[in-house]
Amino acid sequence: MKIITHISEMQQWTKENGGHSIGLVPTMGALHEGHLSLVRAARKESGRVVASIFVNPTQFGPKEDLKNYPRPIARDRKLLDEEKVDVLFYPSAREMYPDGFQTEVRVKGLTEGLCGKFRPVHFAGMTTVVAKLFNAVLPAKAYFGAKDYQQAMVVKRMVRDLNFPVEIRMLETVRERDGLAMSSRNAYLNRMERIKAPMVNLALDYAEALIRQGLRDTDQIQTEIRGFLKPFVSKIDYIEVVHPENLMPIRRFQGTGLLAIACYIGATRLIDNRLVNQHGTKVPGTYYAKTTS
Amino acid sequence: MKIITHISEMQQWTKENGGHSIGLVPTMGALHEGHLSLVRAARKESGRVVASIFVNPTQFGPKEDLKNYPRPIARDRKLLDEEKVDVLFYPSAREMYPDGFQTEVRVKGLTEGLCGKFRPVHFAGMTTVVAKLFNAVLPAKAYFGAKDYQQAMVVKRMVRDLNFPVEIRMLETVRERDGLAMSSRNAYLNRMERIKAPMVNLALDYAEALIRQGLRDTDQIQTEIRGFLKPFVSKIDYIEVVHPENLMPIRRFQGTGLLAIACYIGATRLIDNRLVNQHGTKVPGTYYAKTTS
Repeated sequence: MKIITHISEMQQWTKENGGHSIGLVPTMGALHEGHLSLVRAARKESGRVVASIFVNPTQFGPKEDLKNYPRPIARDRKLLDEEKVDVLFYPSAREMYPDGFQTEVRVKGLTEGLCGKFRPVHFAGMTTVVAKLFNAVLPAKAYFGAKDYQQAMVVKRMVRDLNFPVEIRMLETVRERDGLAMSSRNAYLNRMERIKAPMVNLALDYAEALIRQGLRDTDQIQTEIRGFLKPFVSKIDYIEVVHPENLMPIRRFQGTGLLAIACYIGATRLIDNRLVNQHGTKVPGTYYAKTTS
Repeated sequence: MKIITHISEMQQWTKENGGHSIGLVPTMGALHEGHLSLVRAARKESGRVVASIFVNPTQFGPKEDLKNYPRPIARDRKLLDEEKVDVLFYPSAREMYPDGFQTEVRVKGLTEGLCGKFRPVHFAGMTTVVAKLFNAVLPAKAYFGAKDYQQAMVVKRMVRDLNFPVEIRMLETVRERDGLAMSSRNAYLNRMERIKAPMVNLALDYAEALIRQGLRDTDQIQTEIRGFLKPFVSKIDYIEVVHPENLMPIRRFQGTGLLAIACYIGATRLIDNRLVNQHGTKVPGTYYAKTTS
């Protein structure tokens, strides 16, 4: 596996490998099975695979966990190498944001709700760095996990709006055996918190069951989930039922909705979500990724 | 000359012509010799030349001249055809901004002064559409005129910040025989206004002469130019002396400065500028384009 740290060298590599379609898996490192499932899909679908590791400072708020974010780079390298990634793109913050940097790519409507409300600088930082990664790597496809459903939808919107010649693939959330959605941030959880963390996924099961029983009032669904989670969480950012494409809150459940939760277990912020149809049946996370691209 | 109106078709054409480097001349049409000088440079430097015509609604303010902006498309087509342009990319507003469009590319610092102060939505609209054009055409080089110096510098900044693999070429302002900078908006001038319009360029001559004589206080220079222009203009947006790279106002003239003027002759807004060094000597407009790319 080749390791590239400079943007110009990355672009040069892409030029030389121009005949092959490139699959990009952008990550912040601290890789888990979720990331690796994206890498494997890229390996299957693309002639060349580039994974990027960049803990992007501009998508963290001033009180968020930029400093403590795990950076096990030796382990990450090994994992990517084992998956036969062609290039690890691993730029420094200075390479990505040299003096005088002053450009922002911002998606508006889709970033207003859900995590956007609680992480006001997050999505603009994310879309800006993803635009940079797309221009540095010039991939044909890029892979995102459905755990960060809003992120994937925002990236899809940016790609469509700015005409990036990139296909966005959103793949299903990979979970621990007990249902906890894989996340680099799970490493922050202490033993007691780790026992409580799967309750977020169970809360989604509960909501699904309520919908299957015919409950349609989303206010009621939220109240039920809030009660369910209360004993286990230290704070709830949101429990929402939204339209799966425009991410606007749904008053009365019909068609397919996205159930989305953001809450704290101890000091660790966890998010999870599930696409559910009106029969209360789980909809695979890739469904919308396929139909809206 | 091939005429392409859809983004996907444009991207397909680029794919098929991928072996050749593409030069892009983005315009709003109503072409004049300034535009054509850009097309000729592109023809000289690039294997394939794409010119785009798109009167971008999002870079006009609510009280600006979007409706009246001239659109002599038949004449423009003929001119581009004569210059042996390979493709005219001519999308509709609906093609560029379909329902649900919500993404913005914004350069911050550089857009705060000069025209940015008087046209608050202009530059974000411009950078967004240029990012779209770059992704639609995927050019190796793109050509901009020095009359819109701030625009060219903002585009250069966006390209560098977002790592677009595009080289920005800024070429010198083309002028009428009497010195008036060519502009599609000159067509708005009535006969009396047309006689007054070259005074903007003469005001730059005057400022240059003052600097050559050793005047260094930029407040004084501005006051002199204001007095010079007053009899001819209906309104002055700004007369500024700024640093040619960061566009920040200069208090005391030294090194090289950009003299920039925006004013109204009748109801028509005209802009012009000149790079001057401390000896009061004109610096070719391409100078900074070359050294800062």
